[in-house]
Amino acid sequence: MPKQKVVYTFSLKHEPVEHVKPGEEVLLEVEDAFGGQVKDEKTAIEKLDWSRVNGATGPVFIEGAEPGDTLVVHVVDVKVADKGVIAVIPKQGALKEKSFKAKVKLVPISGGYAHFGKAKVKVNPVIGTIGVAPDKGEYPTGTLGRHGGNMDVKELTRGATLYLPVFAEGALFAAGDLHAVQSDGESCVSAIEVAGEVKLTFDVLKGKSISWPILESGESYAVLVCGDSLDEACVLAVDEAVRGLMREHGWSFEEAYMFTSLAVDLKINQVVDPKKGVRAVIPKSYISIESFCHT
Amino acid sequence: MPKQKVVYTFSLKHEPVEHVKPGEEVLLEVEDAFGGQVKDEKTAIEKLDWSRVNGATGPVFIEGAEPGDTLVVHVVDVKVADKGVIAVIPKQGALKEKSFKAKVKLVPISGGYAHFGKAKVKVNPVIGTIGVAPDKGEYPTGTLGRHGGNMDVKELTRGATLYLPVFAEGALFAAGDLHAVQSDGESCVSAIEVAGEVKLTFDVLKGKSISWPILESGESYAVLVCGDSLDEACVLAVDEAVRGLMREHGWSFEEAYMFTSLAVDLKINQVVDPKKGVRAVIPKSYISIESFCHT
Repeated sequence: MPKQKVVYTFSLKHEPVEHVKPGEEVLLEVEDAFGGQVKDEKTAIEKLDWSRVNGATGPVFIEGAEPGDTLVVHVVDVKVADKGVIAVIPKQGALKEKSFKAKVKLVPISGGYAHFGKAKVKVNPVIGTIGVAPDKGEYPTGTLGRHGGNMDVKELTRGATLYLPVFAEGALFAAGDLHAVQSDGESCVSAIEVAGEVKLTFDVLKGKSISWPILESGESYAVLVCGDSLDEACVLAVDEAVRGLMREHGWSFEEAYMFTSLAVDLKINQVVDPKKGVRAVIPKSYISIESFCHT
Repeated sequence: MPKQKVVYTFSLKHEPVEHVKPGEEVLLEVEDAFGGQVKDEKTAIEKLDWSRVNGATGPVFIEGAEPGDTLVVHVVDVKVADKGVIAVIPKQGALKEKSFKAKVKLVPISGGYAHFGKAKVKVNPVIGTIGVAPDKGEYPTGTLGRHGGNMDVKELTRGATLYLPVFAEGALFAAGDLHAVQSDGESCVSAIEVAGEVKLTFDVLKGKSISWPILESGESYAVLVCGDSLDEACVLAVDEAVRGLMREHGWSFEEAYMFTSLAVDLKINQVVDPKKGVRAVIPKSYISIESFCHT
């Protein structure tokens, strides 16, 4: 799907640009999060056309996906271009209270590394924004919620599987905001923003609902929540982990709550959007995807 | 040093119970965080003598350590007993707003695993509370600050090195609150609390100051900060990481700030004390301990 097929909100109102069947491979071209507007380091970042920032390619209509189902997104591959962009913007990011200047840096990518001046950082191509139409209203692609969105989870890469609640006929899936490199926190407000291609297949868990997106990667499941503060997000993340552990093991609330102190890691996704992203990471040896589902 | 030599605050006012030289090996016996008061699962956790909870063995006077220096603590070994305790307590932990009952669980430890009912979790013996006398006042051992304290960092185990700011003659070091197993977050308020032994050696970086404790483990340094909220702690953590990266690389503020989005992971220690603990983790390939120091 060409990168010109882009949305700037997740919403029921968007007409799908492609219909796919479960199991069918889909290739999304993705523009970088700045909409390709940053051509060189002299670009005045604060003067970009911000209506063209943070686009997501789509929406894709997945046949058979209906409200109350869970959409399964298999990330077959993520490829990124050979040049990325990072920027700091006054009044943005973890240190927004400090006084500093806008700055843009182009970052060459080669040999599996991003070259930030003399410092090289291993490339890990991440899908920053990925989601479906929410149950109501319109969510800018720069925000996050129960429908997914700008979650910025660095394990959301090749080989991962993302589970998303379905609120609309066909789910209306879209993805964008690739990062060649991103740390937990995305502290300065951007990562290495980069164009690229995402190859996906979809499945549908019929009649099974989840409350928040869930990421399966490596040997663990991560419940991807957000809140107005990190502290609020942590409460929601622990709550969802406890519910899952109770279903899985038949434990009391008290037992499952105890177990979160032993085997549920609370991790930070990003701290720089109005909604903060946190994930509760649970090894697969202690929980199955079914235990996150309610019917 | 016997576990009866215990303090419940970090403070200048405590007389040292042992004097050691840099390089000399010290063995601390440590009682569990409940002060050994939980004998069985019928123990009424809310009726414990809370003045005997969260003790730290010490204080140890390290010869040559003076205010403005940095104390280096090498964790030679951490051994834990063959039985631990975990508890949930109403109005405590990440889900303190929920209604639930007090519950105590004894957790046998054998073969390198803690046995929580049928679920077994790999043992990773952690020193939860570790620190020195603060510059002024008296900090309960259950809290944390620039002097260290109840930081609950799961990489603070055998083989790790902790750097602590020195505020008092001899530093007045103490440690306790061992955890046989603990996840990032320590969500329910306790982990597997356990008695044990800690073997340490000390060094002193003369005339070099650090702003927050720094943990060297594996291939990274972690700046261990705290704040009234996780969000506040993240700001402090990024700020300290930026200062260190500027010193190391000669970067501008803007460049160092960008780099935090690429290679500085913000991680959660614990979310259950009045002060929240966060660590900024930076691979050693991008920074040296000297760059965290100011003279």
